[in-house]
Amino acid sequence: MQGEQLYRQKMLRLDADEGVRKTTDLSKNFRKISPYVAGEQPKFADQIKLNTNENPYPPSDKVTEFLENFNRDELKLYPDTNGGELTQAIADYYGVDASRVFVGVGSDDVLAMCFMAFFNSGREVLFPDITYSFYPVWANLFNVKYRTPALDENFKIVKEDYFCENGGIVFPNPNAPTGVEMPLADVEEIVSRNSGSVVIVDEAYVDFGAHSALELTNKYKNLVVVQTFSKSRSLAGLRVGFAVADNALIKQLRAVKDSYNSYTINRITAGAGAAAVKDDEYFKSTVERIVKTRENAKNTLWELGFTFPDSKSNFIFASHKSVSAKEIFEALREKHIFVRYFNLPRIDNYLRITVGTDREMKILFDFLAEYLKDKA
Amino acid sequence: MQGEQLYRQKMLRLDADEGVRKTTDLSKNFRKISPYVAGEQPKFADQIKLNTNENPYPPSDKVTEFLENFNRDELKLYPDTNGGELTQAIADYYGVDASRVFVGVGSDDVLAMCFMAFFNSGREVLFPDITYSFYPVWANLFNVKYRTPALDENFKIVKEDYFCENGGIVFPNPNAPTGVEMPLADVEEIVSRNSGSVVIVDEAYVDFGAHSALELTNKYKNLVVVQTFSKSRSLAGLRVGFAVADNALIKQLRAVKDSYNSYTINRITAGAGAAAVKDDEYFKSTVERIVKTRENAKNTLWELGFTFPDSKSNFIFASHKSVSAKEIFEALREKHIFVRYFNLPRIDNYLRITVGTDREMKILFDFLAEYLKDKA
Repeated sequence: MQGEQLYRQKMLRLDADEGVRKTTDLSKNFRKISPYVAGEQPKFADQIKLNTNENPYPPSDKVTEFLENFNRDELKLYPDTNGGELTQAIADYYGVDASRVFVGVGSDDVLAMCFMAFFNSGREVLFPDITYSFYPVWANLFNVKYRTPALDENFKIVKEDYFCENGGIVFPNPNAPTGVEMPLADVEEIVSRNSGSVVIVDEAYVDFGAHSALELTNKYKNLVVVQTFSKSRSLAGLRVGFAVADNALIKQLRAVKDSYNSYTINRITAGAGAAAVKDDEYFKSTVERIVKTRENAKNTLWELGFTFPDSKSNFIFASHKSVSAKEIFEALREKHIFVRYFNLPRIDNYLRITVGTDREMKILFDFLAEYLKDKA
Repeated sequence: MQGEQLYRQKMLRLDADEGVRKTTDLSKNFRKISPYVAGEQPKFADQIKLNTNENPYPPSDKVTEFLENFNRDELKLYPDTNGGELTQAIADYYGVDASRVFVGVGSDDVLAMCFMAFFNSGREVLFPDITYSFYPVWANLFNVKYRTPALDENFKIVKEDYFCENGGIVFPNPNAPTGVEMPLADVEEIVSRNSGSVVIVDEAYVDFGAHSALELTNKYKNLVVVQTFSKSRSLAGLRVGFAVADNALIKQLRAVKDSYNSYTINRITAGAGAAAVKDDEYFKSTVERIVKTRENAKNTLWELGFTFPDSKSNFIFASHKSVSAKEIFEALREKHIFVRYFNLPRIDNYLRITVGTDREMKILFDFLAEYLKDKA
């Protein structure tokens, strides 16, 4: 202690000599945060990876075609600030004007920009207590107050909880990590009763059989629908997300983005993403395969003694009647079968199992059948 | 007015009926910003584009090779959160550990993250009055107070202006849009006298003949050196920037990034960027060509009656002795020759001319010779 005191005195003297105030602890200037923890990315040759809701099928071969024909000379020039051909391809696909589409580096970028752009009223922002775990992280990062109304006992969002004063609303539909869909009429009621705040519907999983609120953006000026290429379009590695909303909201999103980084969508992502969107046939066939595998998986999980809310996503959120989720998670992990486990209140006895290929699911189920038999 | 009053009364009644407070003006919840205005991206077949400091040469053909051999299957999986092979390639190139390298979506992303991560003391952040115009934009976006000490009459940063209490320091070296280099000893003095705040040296243009502070990051725990692939590496369209600093600073940058968007560097950018870094011979030969063209351009501009600070970047910041910059800018624009003009105090009689190919510079100079002859 004496040594440290001497050191401090010496430091203070040095500071005084130089007329400069110094603090040796730089971290005092740091932003206080507790970062999001992403699902692990294991790298075993034999692994079955069902833990981060990736698509088990490759993206459209139009992506390969684009990459093979891409002229590298283009890369010397900055890209279009608003995503160029990618924004146009999304607009064309969903039948809206390109001025109503905002693209970002994955839907996480789009959602984070939305938090920064739209949640500045000083009033509490609302999102469910069980939901995408990035929402509270963004709220903390941007100093946004929030409140988290609880899901009901069936993991359903209680719409009435959102009929009150607030500084904005965000929820996924289907919700994560439950996979439960809110009926579109309820989504619309939340939007229509909150014309004074921005309502963000995060539709990361909507393509797997749920109903999108995208068309409602033609009617409501306070609705932002966010989607991603990471799940249904097999492009988690390309980083593309987008928002569709009224022009005024998109204009604000673009202004915030331009104040952060004018050029977020690089030329290759713009071209490859646009090529993928245009291959609608492939997209639909892939989604169909996953939905079919999911419905079969529901039957098998039920037979194995699991219960789960009815999923409209590419994952199933399942709890076993007699063996704890944590125990199953660890047993699977040992066999290099990776699913997601959240050690959080109310959901710590559930596993989030991504829908893989039929082969991957068979390996999972074969193991579970043996494993659970021993436990009976 | 009466109509509006009636409308408001009706709205209030509706709100009361529903027990919900509504404000019809959504924009009250918006973040207040005045976005950065990027240089224009004209698209004329015959244009000479010398306005956004892009490299006139294509990137390494290793990029094409990478794209041709890229397996699209990889795109179904999320990328590495810390930039994977790209971060490693940069670390190897500069001889530092990968834990001391942070990669972002262009240096704008890296710098914005630095503002968010490091400038939270409540004290004023310092940067020059004439400098990269994004700094005040980020400061405003993240509610960071700042002060802008003036450059001296030769457009030099006065180092003593940074020997005072502050909440952080950022400046480009060479400075933009002047191209003037600060001697490395002066940079070091600023860093060493500010051990209590983070000092960011933005070296976007350093490869064109200036001296990098990168090695000083081995010695100082408060120094962040930021560079970009957009200029010297001909990859503005790929969006890659990076920071090198002490582990503790990089750890904080990564934590903030992970709280914003865990996956910013997509798999193609990571691979193509890494391939480009490894082709050092091509990189050096391209830079050499640009430096040679720049030195010749200085002679020609001088002969044409321009004055300019000595540039160590890939642009020249030039003022004509008798014709106004705005007039020349507009005359060039009419001929589809694009240079950058800033209508800002102290620099509104200067043009920032990017160093293009010898052919592009000849077209520029031929026009200027004719144009200025008529003005004499």
